Amino acid sequence: MTDPTPSADARRWLADFGAALARQDLTAATALFGDDAYWRDLVAFTWNIRTQEGPAAIREMLAARLADTAPTDFALDGEATAADGITDAWFTFETRVARGRGHLRLKNGQAWTLLTTMVELKGFEEKKGPRRIKGAEHGVHPGRKTWLERRQEEQATLGYTEQPYVVIIGGGQGGIMLAARLRRLGVPTIVVERNEKPGDSWRKRYKSLCLHDPVWYDHLPYLPFPDDWPVFAPKDKIGDWLEMYAKVMELNYWGSTTAKKASFDEATGEWTVVVDRAGQEVVLRPKQLVFALGVSGYANVPKIAGAETFLGEQHHSSRHPGPEGYQGKKVVVLGSNNSAHDICAAMVEQGVDVTMVQRSSTHIAPSDSLMELALGGLYSEQAVKNGIDHHTADLVFASVPYRIMHTFHIPVYEEMKKRDADLYARLEKAGFMLDFGDDGSGLFMKYLRRGSGYYIDVGASELVANGSIKLKSRVNIERINPRSVTLSDGTELPADLIVYATGYGSMNQFLADLVSPEVADRVGKVWGLGSGTTKDPGPWEGELRNMWKPTNQANLWIHGGNLHQSRHYSQFLSLQLKARYEGLDTPVYGQAPVHHLR
Amino acid sequence: MTDPTPSADARRWLADFGAALARQDLTAATALFGDDAYWRDLVAFTWNIRTQEGPAAIREMLAARLADTAPTDFALDGEATAADGITDAWFTFETRVARGRGHLRLKNGQAWTLLTTMVELKGFEEKKGPRRIKGAEHGVHPGRKTWLERRQEEQATLGYTEQPYVVIIGGGQGGIMLAARLRRLGVPTIVVERNEKPGDSWRKRYKSLCLHDPVWYDHLPYLPFPDDWPVFAPKDKIGDWLEMYAKVMELNYWGSTTAKKASFDEATGEWTVVVDRAGQEVVLRPKQLVFALGVSGYANVPKIAGAETFLGEQHHSSRHPGPEGYQGKKVVVLGSNNSAHDICAAMVEQGVDVTMVQRSSTHIAPSDSLMELALGGLYSEQAVKNGIDHHTADLVFASVPYRIMHTFHIPVYEEMKKRDADLYARLEKAGFMLDFGDDGSGLFMKYLRRGSGYYIDVGASELVANGSIKLKSRVNIERINPRSVTLSDGTELPADLIVYATGYGSMNQFLADLVSPEVADRVGKVWGLGSGTTKDPGPWEGELRNMWKPTNQANLWIHGGNLHQSRHYSQFLSLQLKARYEGLDTPVYGQAPVHHLR
Repeated sequence: MTDPTPSADARRWLADFGAALARQDLTAATALFGDDAYWRDLVAFTWNIRTQEGPAAIREMLAARLADTAPTDFALDGEATAADGITDAWFTFETRVARGRGHLRLKNGQAWTLLTTMVELKGFEEKKGPRRIKGAEHGVHPGRKTWLERRQEEQATLGYTEQPYVVIIGGGQGGIMLAARLRRLGVPTIVVERNEKPGDSWRKRYKSLCLHDPVWYDHLPYLPFPDDWPVFAPKDKIGDWLEMYAKVMELNYWGSTTAKKASFDEATGEWTVVVDRAGQEVVLRPKQLVFALGVSGYANVPKIAGAETFLGEQHHSSRHPGPEGYQGKKVVVLGSNNSAHDICAAMVEQGVDVTMVQRSSTHIAPSDSLMELALGGLYSEQAVKNGIDHHTADLVFASVPYRIMHTFHIPVYEEMKKRDADLYARLEKAGFMLDFGDDGSGLFMKYLRRGSGYYIDVGASELVANGSIKLKSRVNIERINPRSVTLSDGTELPADLIVYATGYGSMNQFLADLVSPEVADRVGKVWGLGSGTTKDPGPWEGELRNMWKPTNQANLWIHGGNLHQSRHYSQFLSLQLKARYEGLDTPVYGQAPVHHLR
Repeated sequence: MTDPTPSADARRWLADFGAALARQDLTAATALFGDDAYWRDLVAFTWNIRTQEGPAAIREMLAARLADTAPTDFALDGEATAADGITDAWFTFETRVARGRGHLRLKNGQAWTLLTTMVELKGFEEKKGPRRIKGAEHGVHPGRKTWLERRQEEQATLGYTEQPYVVIIGGGQGGIMLAARLRRLGVPTIVVERNEKPGDSWRKRYKSLCLHDPVWYDHLPYLPFPDDWPVFAPKDKIGDWLEMYAKVMELNYWGSTTAKKASFDEATGEWTVVVDRAGQEVVLRPKQLVFALGVSGYANVPKIAGAETFLGEQHHSSRHPGPEGYQGKKVVVLGSNNSAHDICAAMVEQGVDVTMVQRSSTHIAPSDSLMELALGGLYSEQAVKNGIDHHTADLVFASVPYRIMHTFHIPVYEEMKKRDADLYARLEKAGFMLDFGDDGSGLFMKYLRRGSGYYIDVGASELVANGSIKLKSRVNIERINPRSVTLSDGTELPADLIVYATGYGSMNQFLADLVSPEVADRVGKVWGLGSGTTKDPGPWEGELRNMWKPTNQANLWIHGGNLHQSRHYSQFLSLQLKARYEGLDTPVYGQAPVHHLR
């Protein structure tokens, strides 16, 4: 008898699982999971984005969803691998209406983590590969329209005499990526963007801005960056790419268009969205409305006494133009996270006197270390060489339950502490308040929990450590005077410019402005996991609040995140929208209740 | 003793070959080739594009080039395969200055075909993958310029205060692809194009135009089309792609710029190129000048008696706007190849009375059959599924010597004759003159030999067969009258529009106009193989005349071909230009003499 192999183990588990599900034996199916098991489902079973934690929750989900989902054909894909007692396997499966891909981690023969994802809807597949359209049509077709004529007709009628099924408010990378997916699925969609052209939201940022995530993490769907793309793309290069992408993906992109008001009619199941398109009011009537205005979208500007008396300039970091013209002036930057560091470093480079006012601790993650230690296995040149492209990496990332994700990350940051000990020591010596997240789990967990509180160091930390960027820490700005600011320790700093690098608020504040306060409250706080850590109050959600899945406001969705998330989760949001467009039944399991309003 | 395997055979041959070359043993090296062997070299050994046919020619080339090339490290890449007595192997190798990739076919232990290609120059590799630039630069760099600032500076100075190394005349897909390669190699280049924007040369064609080659054949370098691109892309979609490609590839593309005159100064090794840039005269002084004006570039318009008396419209097919506005008119199309068929079919679709005047036979290749029988193994969904991407396909294509290429193709067209027998029979019944090339080798050989004489049928042949497109064959237009044409058989056809679908002339006629008749004659006829077949007079050249390689005019080059050729051969032309840019020694072996002037 041959020794069991990882693949044999995985095949056996999948066979047992498939069989138990086929005969609707919930007890047998649940018994295949360990006591500390997690089943994360992206749409395929739950028509939701939801992690079932523990056998009881798994059983409950199956009780509600098994019959309707009718899963079949669980099959190992490739060979499974084993390391440190964990067997790792990819598999495919089908449901009544879809085809799926999944990932499995076995511990002692039982499932520890299971990921099921919807890949495509049967009968509504993207027209790609062997299904791609022909283009040239044989024969005589009187009245035939060329591609250009059809495109021009679409651009003239959609939103006017024909209504889109989906309107996406916000034409940054999130809106653009979702629109590309919907286009490929044949769902009529309009993107509204207040800036003139795709990419402008990047072009208008301060001039030194580059992406903070490395290229392998950043690809857009369908058209990866070429292999000579810089590791950290400069903002204007990204702007050009987005402009190009929106064009060749044939998006219906309405630039210079501002959404003014949106309201939902429960009876007709239709939104009325009033927009100003280059000065003209247009009323759109989509069935589905998506907000893609950015995790870092709704600027937070603290109200500080005396702000109205200030004689200099003051603006939020999102409106900061860069250091030009401030030579000889005194600049005060309130905040100590990513934008604050970028802005201060650019000032120093232009010889401008700048002080960073740090109110609370910041997690500093040196870029090289982050790339190597945190991302390297999945998103790097080496990963690509090892056969891990970003599609695979995205799924590996998605397969780690949020509940235990921090345990995967803590060792990474332990290592980073050692590797960059010198920098950290000098930062603390300079008075900078450092942290590694409440539980030492570092950058990505901070990002998921609160969307803030870190800086991916590409050089500014050295300037803080060596004093080039002046620092006042453990203080806030208590009062603003005509030509200075008074800190909470009594110090007065002369100031000609105040930059509020003070972050962003929950995205549902956009809803309050654009729809109504009631709807904003109905939807509730956006982002965060309910971890009970700083700025992420419990109870535990298990998934990011309100992202890429049904909200408590019918037909209202929220899309966004970093480039990786916008890329990967646009797949699942587009499938949920396509299913509704085609009139498929989409019974949502486990709609998350709202615990916080902001 | 184990049976020899294909890989073992290939390894042994490569080892023997490498060893013979290393000890400069020409006899031993030559003995490794069969009597009917071919060694095609793309730059690596010969700094040329040249096929050495037979052992004597191979020995001669080695005698001249072996010492300087200093080839080493011949290594099998992957596993070799064997079928029908032929062993097929890929290998890598190095030379003193470059890294290369090659392909080998063994017959009875001896080389039958050998392909050696230059992949990159040592020390001058493209900055891609692990070599890609960082983008964000750490630390303080006073006076640092952003990507945008450097780009804007380049656009303001190149061609004015800084001279490019290369000027490419012609900004269609050929010029664009070559410029993209040169950009990645860091060779300062300007592309001049008379139309306003990249892609306009496509946009301005008749509206029904789609690509005739299927998508897998058409990818541009570095950025393949997405997997939902139509099989046959409509002209405007290609136009948009080219426009965006030129932008994201950061080309220095001067639209609305017409080249007026160019002259070469032997003493300085520099060209003077006078251009009109949007009304302003600019003098460019590159070292290298590339003409990329199209195999189908220099329109042929026959001089027919009475043409000046014609009261209707007349234009070459390249200027044909489409069928709109010709309802109720009589249209005569002179010619029976690709453009003629497209134009006539579009007329029929609009209900316009149109007659095709066929002077000589045409090879009709139904598109589906062509895709399946001729291209399917290399450029198709199936090929991709079999692991053959376009990079591999390009090299397989390149590995077949032109001398014997027709033997590979004849069976394909034998099959096509059978498969489409019904259509061919009905075409002949309608009076259409058919051929399959002089030797039955079909479309691609006709294309290589004469660049014309065929139609890739996407529906127009049915219209000829059923009489919807009226046909007069075995005639020419003898005389043009004010409202009609008189054919050589005496027939008179009423005409309001005459379209000269009469093809294109040798590209060196552009040289006569732009440089001088002497230089045009020095360069000689462009395209064709010297096969001695119709419109391709001998003697045998072995390669396409003057394409992608040194011409007899110093520092003058010609680029172009179909999308596959423009893509693949831009690699080798860009390397030849880069080597000269870096001052490397590039002794050209076997410069082809000129046998024909046009």
